[in-house]
Amino acid sequence: MEKNWVALDAIFNPDSVSVIGASDNPGKLGSHVMRSLTEGRYPGKIYPVNPGKDEIMGIKTYPSLLQVSEPIDLSIIVLPAEQVPKIIKECKQKGVKGMVLITAGFKEIEDKRGEHLQREITELANRFGMKIIGPNTFGIVNLHLPLNASFTPEFSLVKKGGISFVSQSGGMSHLMGFLSMQNRVGFSKIIGLGNRCNVDFAEIVEYLTQDPQTRVIAMYMEGIDQPKKLMEVAKKNSKKPILAYKVGRSHTSDQASQFHTGSLAGKHEIYKSALKQVGILTVESSEELLDTAKALDLCPLPEGNKVAVLSGQAGPGMAACDVCETEGLWIPPFSMETQKRVEELLPPLAIRTNPVDMGPAWYDSEAIKGIVHTVMNDQNIDALILCIMFASANRSAVGILTDLLLEKRTHKPILCCFSSPAGIWDDEIKRLEESGIPNYPTPERAAKTLVNLFRFKKMKE
Amino acid sequence: MEKNWVALDAIFNPDSVSVIGASDNPGKLGSHVMRSLTEGRYPGKIYPVNPGKDEIMGIKTYPSLLQVSEPIDLSIIVLPAEQVPKIIKECKQKGVKGMVLITAGFKEIEDKRGEHLQREITELANRFGMKIIGPNTFGIVNLHLPLNASFTPEFSLVKKGGISFVSQSGGMSHLMGFLSMQNRVGFSKIIGLGNRCNVDFAEIVEYLTQDPQTRVIAMYMEGIDQPKKLMEVAKKNSKKPILAYKVGRSHTSDQASQFHTGSLAGKHEIYKSALKQVGILTVESSEELLDTAKALDLCPLPEGNKVAVLSGQAGPGMAACDVCETEGLWIPPFSMETQKRVEELLPPLAIRTNPVDMGPAWYDSEAIKGIVHTVMNDQNIDALILCIMFASANRSAVGILTDLLLEKRTHKPILCCFSSPAGIWDDEIKRLEESGIPNYPTPERAAKTLVNLFRFKKMKE
Repeated sequence: MEKNWVALDAIFNPDSVSVIGASDNPGKLGSHVMRSLTEGRYPGKIYPVNPGKDEIMGIKTYPSLLQVSEPIDLSIIVLPAEQVPKIIKECKQKGVKGMVLITAGFKEIEDKRGEHLQREITELANRFGMKIIGPNTFGIVNLHLPLNASFTPEFSLVKKGGISFVSQSGGMSHLMGFLSMQNRVGFSKIIGLGNRCNVDFAEIVEYLTQDPQTRVIAMYMEGIDQPKKLMEVAKKNSKKPILAYKVGRSHTSDQASQFHTGSLAGKHEIYKSALKQVGILTVESSEELLDTAKALDLCPLPEGNKVAVLSGQAGPGMAACDVCETEGLWIPPFSMETQKRVEELLPPLAIRTNPVDMGPAWYDSEAIKGIVHTVMNDQNIDALILCIMFASANRSAVGILTDLLLEKRTHKPILCCFSSPAGIWDDEIKRLEESGIPNYPTPERAAKTLVNLFRFKKMKE
Repeated sequence: MEKNWVALDAIFNPDSVSVIGASDNPGKLGSHVMRSLTEGRYPGKIYPVNPGKDEIMGIKTYPSLLQVSEPIDLSIIVLPAEQVPKIIKECKQKGVKGMVLITAGFKEIEDKRGEHLQREITELANRFGMKIIGPNTFGIVNLHLPLNASFTPEFSLVKKGGISFVSQSGGMSHLMGFLSMQNRVGFSKIIGLGNRCNVDFAEIVEYLTQDPQTRVIAMYMEGIDQPKKLMEVAKKNSKKPILAYKVGRSHTSDQASQFHTGSLAGKHEIYKSALKQVGILTVESSEELLDTAKALDLCPLPEGNKVAVLSGQAGPGMAACDVCETEGLWIPPFSMETQKRVEELLPPLAIRTNPVDMGPAWYDSEAIKGIVHTVMNDQNIDALILCIMFASANRSAVGILTDLLLEKRTHKPILCCFSSPAGIWDDEIKRLEESGIPNYPTPERAAKTLVNLFRFKKMKE
């Protein structure tokens, strides 16, 4: 298993990379891969391989891999499928440690030759003791190195963070990348498994559980060939949260999965309960996956299910309560002392019990701070949801709360929905999130995420 | 009822507005209201009223309403609650046609005096035949005039469109406004009902069903005092889609509702079935409300439940299929001719049945156009979902599809999830949405919205 880790680490943290099929023609994937490496500021050596070129994007180019005299850790391959077996042999000869095989045309195509070719390259790689990510993958990204070994240079725009995303779909990886940009979510690694010739969920998850730059593992799954192996890896993992978004709930997408990456998705409910048994949290949409992974990365888990909802306006607070209570959380009364203090701080103009409508205190920053701080310390409360919708008159509220929350730390999760027109509260929200307090675009999504933190906590017990 | 319409239209389309309690002190709501009117480019006459000022923000200011010699259609009131009865009498004397009463401190406060005061002003307004929006409201916005009669100048940033939003919560109105900015959704009117002293959902919805600038009516509800009246209005309406997001599913938010605007939310399920009976579509979150209202504004309704899912990558297509099929839509096989044509256009490298993975045709714009056009015309298909995740290599795909979709119109709804890093596909998406094809941030949200279009269609039958 240590061997497995070393082999995969050479792929994610290579000192040098060759691009076999490099190009400067924007109509070729090889040009996008070259841009990903260079625009993504990969700090190691890059060796483009293309027999027709001396130089690509200003980088010396080699007619073949074997002409490179320096050692190469990772080869990214974008040549046509039928050339791949020969390339793998060259990689072996050259001492390349791992491969990202972007090329499509293997097990996923209707033509049986694809399946044969995949069997051939898998046998080669296994015999040579080499790991291949792919084939039929967009690639991998390690935002910490940084290494963008994919055909999409724009992945380098994703923020660096603690979530590693492992996906059976390149499209879903792109979607998660773009959603993360809009929602300020930081990723560690983004991994397209493709057809998984000899690196499947189990191997990657095992690697990531030992990767110091990964704090949360998020998966997108269609179907897996070796569920038992993944279950064993997950069972051994006690440190890092793992969550999964599995499609195939419906008949059609289950069937489509078989065509897509050659795996039948299988009965959805069986998967779900198997995943639950080994401590993997399941979610039902791409946004829920991102929202929950973000909280698991930033937040502590709640000790229990007792939630305080404090809002700057009553409506969004009620929307949050609805989600909490219909999904197993409890909005309990405050302790007597907390209730008394809230009543001292808030005039009798709005709801002063849990959920609290802090509306009447908009102009009184000491009152808002006092209420939040008192409720944070209430022993009857395990977690807080804070919702404030911007209005000109409460512009300063989020800054004041940010200062308070950063000063008075708590071991309780605090999830926010601070919403404003673009730009107004960006700095405050950035400061909050950097300090472990995630913000969400709606009260319902903040509440649903807290529900998932509690589900995860219970599952782990 | 005609009288009702005229009275409300004076509030939404006034020739002149007075701000009673106008201010230039940013610590006062009266200053924010003045900014809303001026920065929002209200085209009519503005009459600030404040006995201590000659001029506010460069506009001549009057010591009292009665000193204004010109006629006034709308008065926006931000004075303390106890002064409001006197102001209403002055408004009557001056011939003011309607009022937006932002002032809080009425039925919503714990102190019984608030309730008495609300009864007093309601009786006055009814006796005088005047309509009051509020009290305890952020105000109203008519983006078509434009008129921003609220304490939040930033509402003027919302795009003009066909959706009118009627809300029992100012916070929810702000949230919807900010979400609409992020999701390019256009609004006609945004209305905070507040404590609804003599203008409730029924009156507003009746007005909006006859308002030529409103195509879709979206409501946020906590609880209503006169549900029957609203039901009657909705039953009479046959033209415009009405949808409702009602909180109070949980015990706590139901109770909170009573404190918030003085109405017990009541049994959620009873509300839901009553709303359904009169053709009001219910949704379960703020995002779902916005997503669905956007589609109802832009799209035709599907004739049936047969959906084609065409995606640039398989994974997002499967996610869309899952939502469709688990919520009552059907992903049927294509007709023989369509299937044959798709097979001619798409190499046997990926899924060519419904859902179609168009991945292998990324570089072949004629093939992509041909597939989408063929499927659009398949008599076995009632609606389309198109998903394309950006990659450098498919940058031109969305432009090509946009040209096709604008050239070959169809009466079938087409919902898209075209996702990219900020800025890349903005122009294309804008063109699509202006032509009746809405775009959503995730495949699941596009699919859920199509589910709601179909639910609405079925309910209407």
